[in-house]
Amino acid sequence: MTIIEELKRALGPEAVLTGSEIGERYVSDASLTGRVAPMAVIRPRSVDAVSAALSICNAHGQPVIPQGGMTGLAGGANPRGGEVAISLEQLAGVEEIDPAAATITLKAGTILETAQAAAADAGFLLPIDLGARGSCQIGGNLSTNAGGIRVIRHGVTRDNVLGLEVVLADGTVLSMLNKMTKNNTGYDLRQFFIGAEGTLGIITRAVLKLKPLPAARSTALVALESYEAVIAFLQKAQRELLALSAYEAMWQSFVRFSSKAEGIKLFEAEYPFLVIIEEDGDGSEVARERFEGFLGGALEEGLIVDALIAQSEKDARNFWTVREAVTMDRLLPSLVNLDVSMPSGEIGRFAEACEAELLSRFPGAHVSFYGHIGDSNLHIAFSLENASESDLHAVDEIVYALVQRFKGSISAEHGIGTLKRPYLGCSRSPEELEAMRRIKHTLDPKGILNPGKVI
Amino acid sequence: MTIIEELKRALGPEAVLTGSEIGERYVSDASLTGRVAPMAVIRPRSVDAVSAALSICNAHGQPVIPQGGMTGLAGGANPRGGEVAISLEQLAGVEEIDPAAATITLKAGTILETAQAAAADAGFLLPIDLGARGSCQIGGNLSTNAGGIRVIRHGVTRDNVLGLEVVLADGTVLSMLNKMTKNNTGYDLRQFFIGAEGTLGIITRAVLKLKPLPAARSTALVALESYEAVIAFLQKAQRELLALSAYEAMWQSFVRFSSKAEGIKLFEAEYPFLVIIEEDGDGSEVARERFEGFLGGALEEGLIVDALIAQSEKDARNFWTVREAVTMDRLLPSLVNLDVSMPSGEIGRFAEACEAELLSRFPGAHVSFYGHIGDSNLHIAFSLENASESDLHAVDEIVYALVQRFKGSISAEHGIGTLKRPYLGCSRSPEELEAMRRIKHTLDPKGILNPGKVI
Ligand SMILES: Cc1cc2nc3c(=O)[nH]c(=O)nc-3n(C[C@H](O)[C@H](O)[C@H](O)COP(=O)(O)OP(=O)(O)OC[C@H]3O[C@@H](n4cnc5c(N)ncnc54)[C@H](O)[C@@H]3O)c2cc1C
Ligand SMILES: Cc1cc2nc3c(=O)[nH]c(=O)nc-3n(C[C@H](O)[C@H](O)[C@H](O)COP(=O)(O)OP(=O)(O)OC[C@H]3O[C@@H](n4cnc5c(N)ncnc54)[C@H](O)[C@@H]3O)c2cc1C
Repeated sequence: MTIIEELKRALGPEAVLTGSEIGERYVSDASLTGRVAPMAVIRPRSVDAVSAALSICNAHGQPVIPQGGMTGLAGGANPRGGEVAISLEQLAGVEEIDPAAATITLKAGTILETAQAAAADAGFLLPIDLGARGSCQIGGNLSTNAGGIRVIRHGVTRDNVLGLEVVLADGTVLSMLNKMTKNNTGYDLRQFFIGAEGTLGIITRAVLKLKPLPAARSTALVALESYEAVIAFLQKAQRELLALSAYEAMWQSFVRFSSKAEGIKLFEAEYPFLVIIEEDGDGSEVARERFEGFLGGALEEGLIVDALIAQSEKDARNFWTVREAVTMDRLLPSLVNLDVSMPSGEIGRFAEACEAELLSRFPGAHVSFYGHIGDSNLHIAFSLENASESDLHAVDEIVYALVQRFKGSISAEHGIGTLKRPYLGCSRSPEELEAMRRIKHTLDPKGILNPGKVI
Repeated sequence: MTIIEELKRALGPEAVLTGSEIGERYVSDASLTGRVAPMAVIRPRSVDAVSAALSICNAHGQPVIPQGGMTGLAGGANPRGGEVAISLEQLAGVEEIDPAAATITLKAGTILETAQAAAADAGFLLPIDLGARGSCQIGGNLSTNAGGIRVIRHGVTRDNVLGLEVVLADGTVLSMLNKMTKNNTGYDLRQFFIGAEGTLGIITRAVLKLKPLPAARSTALVALESYEAVIAFLQKAQRELLALSAYEAMWQSFVRFSSKAEGIKLFEAEYPFLVIIEEDGDGSEVARERFEGFLGGALEEGLIVDALIAQSEKDARNFWTVREAVTMDRLLPSLVNLDVSMPSGEIGRFAEACEAELLSRFPGAHVSFYGHIGDSNLHIAFSLENASESDLHAVDEIVYALVQRFKGSISAEHGIGTLKRPYLGCSRSPEELEAMRRIKHTLDPKGILNPGKVI
């Protein structure tokens, strides 16, 4: 019997797609670098089906790729040819919200936005949030340890996980659907699978922390003269605002470019740096006054040189539209977006050095910077008309070598996948890589899980 | 050459203690269950010395025990005889505070209180905090993933770690002194060693997150009629207080006992439950009014039936003295303290069932409950005059079987060590135990690191 026949027998024929049944969805994630279809796609509806599929594939040494919402930006869910893709899309749904424990239990294929809505209906906030919320899955968020815009208040995905159910390469199910904040009973195996990009096991269920739904949010856009001021103002905000929930910095080159692209004018004058700052609150007059007083103090101290407080949802939306710059993709034919991190105090100097190196190699290129500065995370946008493959490769090399010099990380949020795999050594030592290989071999001795990714 | 001679040659003779040079400190942790001295104690002063020592011991298959401040309560740092104890006490000191990144970098042997003071001097809070602060070490806190009283606001130790340096059993140094909130570059090896109780590697350095130092703190003691009210009031507090920083519940039996022992009367009347609630704040009039308004609202809604707001440090200290009940140790000759967790909504029913079972088996025993309810964590105090070893053993068995029925954890904070090792199966499945064994074998193939502990 072939593997496909075995899989059809175990899961039912409708759960297995082959040949022309395999749609575009299964070829590439949002990095658009996937080129080939997998040999087959299976869409299990239960944990048992995932377990059965893996034990069949493991017996045959058949490579497998876990696929979530396919919004990843590192090529992690892309086939290389010949694999069985295991798509979690039909293993979806919220199973329980426990208001006393403030937890949500769900299947891994649940779309993030669906989970957020279920939490909100019950009066809670699911703090994990990112632009891809309408398509990405909880299992994908966990497997990439996704970041996003609320990290400064609620942490990365890892910080919001209480329980996990995982199927190992050989089909063994680890059921760790813990709901407790505190549980020190031996090795915390949950942690191994978070951020492992599907190379150590397939996540099938999770228990996540819920937070109270904030009644209101205050938003302001402020202008600053230097990166040192960006950091000093951040420190003041962390001291004085109890519920600081976003701190997003934009460099002048980025603002100039993105305001124009979006057709949104923010300030009359141009400034070296703009920051969007938000605080969660109860919507009371007192809270609003406190937020205004905080900004007034920063102006008086000379930390910031101008400020706009959003008076409406629409004002706030405008600030965020410039920051999110979704139109960028359309405007620039050869856009490269890089996602790095380094100690927050170093980011200003890094950006200067990075801009200088890129422009000396590619005069006339567009280089701009923006990022979640409160989380040590910088995004770099680069574009050059008629850039060749090798030019884009050179951009990666220049940036990652510089990141290494600044003791930073070549991937803050997006993971390694296939795209950053050649550069992993810029952020991890040979000893760490060796330990990673040993862990991989222990949990997946035949190497069937997402081969060619991460390590 | 014997191992001792090799160690002396590699580390210098003054770093190696044997025979009568080995003091009481190295025999038992705070569980007072250690009975034998190790074969030798070494006190390395550098990471290289730890690495050299481990590679010598590994070559000989010589068992090793990492020892921190010896305040553990699970017997994790206790010798079983014949081991080389590696005490981290001389690998101590704060190396750097980076105000822009809000991080502290320190050696693992640094006493927690020393690290807290260094952070405070620089205007920051090191959020890890527990009663043993004057003796426990950062390396011990990391290795037990310690909890404590500020978890509700700042998380457990794991949540406060950014970077780690670890020496593996064979002497390999993994240097992961990351300062960034976001770093998704392959497997997060740091997580493996946190909470591993010294069985996977020796932690030699760490980078921890710092938070702004709160200017002030509001404290109140409230009385409630039912466990349901304890949970409902917690939910209200989480919604309405932006900086809720403690939520400690005490059952009536506990209050009665501890107030008497400490000679502190709290309320005139007796109530089924008391809760200490604290909020960090800026010390302003507005903040105080908001806190009072919150309590007033809870009284009006009937969630709480009485409240005392601390008017001074001394008032707050009184509440905490009853909660901490340090005198308990002196008063009860045969005190057993159990530390368990379960989903917060279940704790009330669990406590009822637990009290009933213990009293039916041991009529006349003292049984009382208190805990960090906001973190799903319950402590159980049991004592019985003239209890035998086998009585105390029966207490463990009764409680842990019940914990298993309530899907809880047999160790919320204190870890497994030797004392809870026989019961690990109450909280972890055979598949999880097998995965733990495989990880252990991969990272420590000769099993030299803290053998007989955890698994
Ligand atoms: C518009 C847009 C905005 C974005 N914003 C952010 C952001 O702010 N922060 C951020 O961190 N990322 C961001 N991303 C990247 C991406 O959305 C996240 O990485 C997301 O978490 C991926 O989820 P997914 O379900 O789409 O995973 P996929 O792309 O399907 O897979 C990602 C990786 O996880 C593995 N995987 C998926 N599901 C499972 C499972 N159940 N078990 C085991 N392995 C699995 C895959 O094999 C692959 O390696 C953004 C992407 C887009 C397109
Ligand atoms: C009064 C008192 C109050 C307490 N309150 C709390 C509390 O609120 N919350 C809580 O969680 N715990 C509490 N504890 C328990 C204890 O203090 C903590 O577990 C503490 O973190 C242990 O630190 P230590 O340095 O004393 O470790 P030790 O007792 O020396 O060792 C603990 C374990 O860690 C290992 N270890 C130590 N250092 C290293 C290292 N550098 N590398 C690798 N392994 C190492 C040891 O082998 C052992 O297994 C309390 C204890 C006391 C006595």
